[in-house]
Amino acid sequence: MKIALDVNGSDEAPASELAGARRALEERDALDLILVGDPASVEPILSEWPDSLLDRVELEPATDRIHPGESPASAVRKRPDSSIVRGIRLQKEGRADAFISAGSTGAVMAASLIFLRPLPGVARPAIGTVLPTAKGPTLMLDAGANVDCKPMHLLQFARLGAIYAQDLMGVPEPRVALLNIGEEPEKGDELSVEAHMLLRESNLNFVGNLEGRDVIQGACDVLVCDGFVGNVLLKFYESVAEFVIGLLGRELDLQGVDLDLHKVFRALDYAEYGGAPLLGVNGVTIICHGKSPPKAIRNAIRVAVQAVESRMIAHIAGELGQSEANSADP
Amino acid sequence: MKIALDVNGSDEAPASELAGARRALEERDALDLILVGDPASVEPILSEWPDSLLDRVELEPATDRIHPGESPASAVRKRPDSSIVRGIRLQKEGRADAFISAGSTGAVMAASLIFLRPLPGVARPAIGTVLPTAKGPTLMLDAGANVDCKPMHLLQFARLGAIYAQDLMGVPEPRVALLNIGEEPEKGDELSVEAHMLLRESNLNFVGNLEGRDVIQGACDVLVCDGFVGNVLLKFYESVAEFVIGLLGRELDLQGVDLDLHKVFRALDYAEYGGAPLLGVNGVTIICHGKSPPKAIRNAIRVAVQAVESRMIAHIAGELGQSEANSADP
Repeated sequence: MKIALDVNGSDEAPASELAGARRALEERDALDLILVGDPASVEPILSEWPDSLLDRVELEPATDRIHPGESPASAVRKRPDSSIVRGIRLQKEGRADAFISAGSTGAVMAASLIFLRPLPGVARPAIGTVLPTAKGPTLMLDAGANVDCKPMHLLQFARLGAIYAQDLMGVPEPRVALLNIGEEPEKGDELSVEAHMLLRESNLNFVGNLEGRDVIQGACDVLVCDGFVGNVLLKFYESVAEFVIGLLGRELDLQGVDLDLHKVFRALDYAEYGGAPLLGVNGVTIICHGKSPPKAIRNAIRVAVQAVESRMIAHIAGELGQSEANSADP
Repeated sequence: MKIALDVNGSDEAPASELAGARRALEERDALDLILVGDPASVEPILSEWPDSLLDRVELEPATDRIHPGESPASAVRKRPDSSIVRGIRLQKEGRADAFISAGSTGAVMAASLIFLRPLPGVARPAIGTVLPTAKGPTLMLDAGANVDCKPMHLLQFARLGAIYAQDLMGVPEPRVALLNIGEEPEKGDELSVEAHMLLRESNLNFVGNLEGRDVIQGACDVLVCDGFVGNVLLKFYESVAEFVIGLLGRELDLQGVDLDLHKVFRALDYAEYGGAPLLGVNGVTIICHGKSPPKAIRNAIRVAVQAVESRMIAHIAGELGQSEANSADP
């Protein structure tokens, strides 16, 4: 198995990516990595690695970098030597089984859509994000790839998420819920009311609407929403955890209490879950936070390995391609 | 000044409401209250109050109660003797200057729309909620009264919120932001892109788009959004604060640390800010959380008093009625 890793991507690139890559290689024998990035910054770090690890690593030169402020689609077209375009193309060319990047989310998504293409039956690929909850992870999608969704898109997100939960979270019959502002089927905006009906009529294990207050209780495995509300919620969640830890850390210091808050809040730590999969394209793309520490990169590699080993893409193609064929029946 | 208070509303009614009412009366001389509720449950508690407070209290009998599960509009029509309908009508009849309830949010809203009516120039009254942030309160609206909003509605929410911030939060030139999924004007869904343009062209102090991660930093005074995303965010926020305090409380107990977390998180405590105003109706309606402790009721009374004293309704009528007249110009 060969995973391509963008080492130009994160805020601490390439140090964070390389530290995470090293841990992943040390922990797992059946893994080779293609490091996609600027040789000038990567080689000094690799020179300190043992030969046993270097034997399992290839360097794919990519001297360019797409910056967060750039328009994703035009940057992807204008920068063929960027690590994101090079990395995605490695998958397209069959040289890598998956691609991981902590660079511009929009550019990773755009490059995946342009070069890998959506799978048959998938109108809009979605970003899935694992939200930590009181009862373990919940996969929320879409986390920001799509706005102005139609009810049918939300149904597809649910199907994509259910396959991810089965293949990567070990949940045989994932509980799928719709993020909404009330429990009753008639609650919410037009999109939610119609999506609720589609989900109820589907063969998914649909457990109904879930309100904002229920998310953290872990009442479902897959939480479906439009990418606008998903993105707002995700970013808010990340910031609240940081804020609370900061506020409390100062107070504990004042009181002379020595407590590792990050350990207490390990359950709420995003880095534990690695990156966010882009679901519904013909390839494995994992998007990491720009602030990813080595642990998050290591875990993203683990997620990519699991996606490849479980044959997630084939499962998505089978189920969503199938349902497209069915819905085209007269 | 006479404020009507629903004492059938909260989960701990009437005890919580009466304890909050008593504190408000003790703290402020120029205040009379009309307690709207079931005499059988209220009178035993009032019998323990001193005469000096009882002189400033009237009891408006309302033996019926609208339950959270009922359809708001039909419940309001079917239950004329409910505390919510009685209380709102007191305002309509000129017997009270404001109404406060911790009962069904939907029913308080429906009764306000039916009996008080929206002010001229207000297409859709909105629920404003004060979100605690690192730099003090931010008023977010709409928090759930409206879904499927049009750009013009978001502009009106901004105007309503700015007047509230001026009159009740003491901010002369409130910074108004649009909740969105990116900073750039072209980011977001169709609603956000168009609302951004309207806000930028308005005479408001519009500071641009705000992402989910910026909310807790307190980067604006008034945060505008569709009621769907506002409601999801609000309920999520409330639940995260509770969850974190619970998680941490257990850990501190284990470590033998004695720390009053609610004191540490006072800045994040909703009860500090009292209730949520329904902005844009011809009257002062304050909606409290069903779990409101006495402190929240006391603070909601304070908010109602401020709204009346500052002549908020006249300001809204002046500014939004004016802008309606302008926009009707040829």
